[in-house]
Amino acid sequence: MAKSLTDIIKNIQPLDKNAMSLARARQEILTKPAGSLGRLEDLSIRLAGIQAKSKPQVKQKAVIVMVADHGVVAEGTSAYPQTVTAQMVLNFVRGGAAINVISRQIGARVIVVDIGIAGKTSSFLGILRHKIAQGTQNMCVGPAMSLDQARLSIETGIEVVQSEINKGLDIVGTGEMGIGNTTASSAICAVITGKSVAEVTGRGTGLSDEQLQRKIAVIEKALKVNQPSAAQPLEVLAKVGGLEIGGLAGVILGAAANRVPVVIDGFISGAAALIASGLCPQVKDYLIAGHVSVEPGHQYLLDYLGLKPLLALEMRLGEGTGAALGMTLAEAACRTLSEMATFTEAGVSTKE
Amino acid sequence: MAKSLTDIIKNIQPLDKNAMSLARARQEILTKPAGSLGRLEDLSIRLAGIQAKSKPQVKQKAVIVMVADHGVVAEGTSAYPQTVTAQMVLNFVRGGAAINVISRQIGARVIVVDIGIAGKTSSFLGILRHKIAQGTQNMCVGPAMSLDQARLSIETGIEVVQSEINKGLDIVGTGEMGIGNTTASSAICAVITGKSVAEVTGRGTGLSDEQLQRKIAVIEKALKVNQPSAAQPLEVLAKVGGLEIGGLAGVILGAAANRVPVVIDGFISGAAALIASGLCPQVKDYLIAGHVSVEPGHQYLLDYLGLKPLLALEMRLGEGTGAALGMTLAEAACRTLSEMATFTEAGVSTKE
Repeated sequence: MAKSLTDIIKNIQPLDKNAMSLARARQEILTKPAGSLGRLEDLSIRLAGIQAKSKPQVKQKAVIVMVADHGVVAEGTSAYPQTVTAQMVLNFVRGGAAINVISRQIGARVIVVDIGIAGKTSSFLGILRHKIAQGTQNMCVGPAMSLDQARLSIETGIEVVQSEINKGLDIVGTGEMGIGNTTASSAICAVITGKSVAEVTGRGTGLSDEQLQRKIAVIEKALKVNQPSAAQPLEVLAKVGGLEIGGLAGVILGAAANRVPVVIDGFISGAAALIASGLCPQVKDYLIAGHVSVEPGHQYLLDYLGLKPLLALEMRLGEGTGAALGMTLAEAACRTLSEMATFTEAGVSTKE
Repeated sequence: MAKSLTDIIKNIQPLDKNAMSLARARQEILTKPAGSLGRLEDLSIRLAGIQAKSKPQVKQKAVIVMVADHGVVAEGTSAYPQTVTAQMVLNFVRGGAAINVISRQIGARVIVVDIGIAGKTSSFLGILRHKIAQGTQNMCVGPAMSLDQARLSIETGIEVVQSEINKGLDIVGTGEMGIGNTTASSAICAVITGKSVAEVTGRGTGLSDEQLQRKIAVIEKALKVNQPSAAQPLEVLAKVGGLEIGGLAGVILGAAANRVPVVIDGFISGAAALIASGLCPQVKDYLIAGHVSVEPGHQYLLDYLGLKPLLALEMRLGEGTGAALGMTLAEAACRTLSEMATFTEAGVSTKE
């Protein structure tokens, strides 16, 4: 591994137990019955441990949207043509996509990264250009990318999130776009969780029954051709992953190394979390599951990661939309912990 | 019934099918796979039907917090002393409670109403004074209030929400405070849903096993003494309800009569929704369940009302906290419907 990835992994520390104890103690003296904010209280305590602050904060927010194409679409696994990837990036840049709308509402900035779109995006204003390849290769024929490209995709994610952290960042959400990327994510999910391909493969943007069967067969073929091993997460990424998935794995690792909590979005972001946690199991403590998607593999990988989603709204859009909504709950968790009055401050009697 | 309540009920109309059709059609042409925003799409369509606008909006928001005391606390059914009701109102006024913090985050105004607090609140700035009684009577001995008081509590809620609508209101959340009010809510829930008292009674602010058994026995005694009939919702409110529960039933009816969507909060707000929908079944279409609380009766009453909660965060605080969080999802539903680009506007290819 390149030095920077190795160094980043070394920097990912356990949660700060002292900050967590202080946050837990404060939750007990706030003007509410103990525990009555439920999972928001637990979340506030974990955010304290992540940020190493007894009063964590979620003010400066960003959603990093990694975008790339997938050679496997040649096998007919997607309901939309590959050109939609670049078209949607233009939509992101112009502020017309769902992630733009929700991010405006919650006060998050949206960072769009071309990490491997097939085709030119040089005329698009406002995107970050880190193109590693014109999409991946068809994983049914051989590896989706080289090991060097896989490593570079992760390091690109680290670089992008580091740059955002330098600007000021309390929390980051993962987002993505890439026609064909549920196919790669199902492949990663099957390899790492050990579930069958059929169990972790869904309809993506809207496949018919017949198309779903073909998608499963394509993934099974890709696994047979490439023989990825769960014990080698970088190799899994190279063989059956995607450039945006590697980029998000880098965002996750880079954020965790800087004690920035990461709200993961849907199934593709979850696949990135599987790669990241394969490289560094400690990173799991830094992850918050924004929601659970209707892609069947998502619940399996959340179980594998030990994460319970904040929302279950039957969404399956990606882009970071579920992460953005989850971020606003993380903000509520932090704000109640910090801003609520204590029983003493408010002159409220405690339990009899 | 007083004319105003009767009139309000007459004004509650079916959802606007035309606005819903237009909203549904627009969801199909926005730049996302059809249906991929899941329950947010369904919610946006229902909000269109409620507001009778093809592009509904959730900008001006308010949480109405009705506060009252309960004579039944004399039976020892609550973990906190009755004085906490008034103390918490002071905390609301000063902005130190959870509902204040979350409302600041989501941009909602908080309206606090003394509709029946035991004790003086005349020195509290910034609350609305509509005190009907110094709390209810002990429902183990006789009715909690008279039929006139019950009707007046509902009409007070109608008046309060009408005043907010006059100021500009796109959506309203229900909130409450009142030591002892889960006891009254369990009684209402048992009567109207037909479940046993034990099934719909929980630990409120934190009862022990023994205290929970006592609470169940107290509610059973109140039902035996008062013999409320599910077919007479106003009588149920009078016999075993509470003034804040009546107030919230009025908020619900008054909002619906003005085509303003209502996000209901937890168990007590749900009991108010049972009363309101008993008086006018049509009102159910105007209700959005913000969350499901850990009080066991809440899920039963949501099932009875045909509502699926947006959030399940194991909260049990009340005050409107779950409603406020749900409101921000309603806002996301409306904003994505209104603000997202269509495939044509964005120049994005549609499904192959």
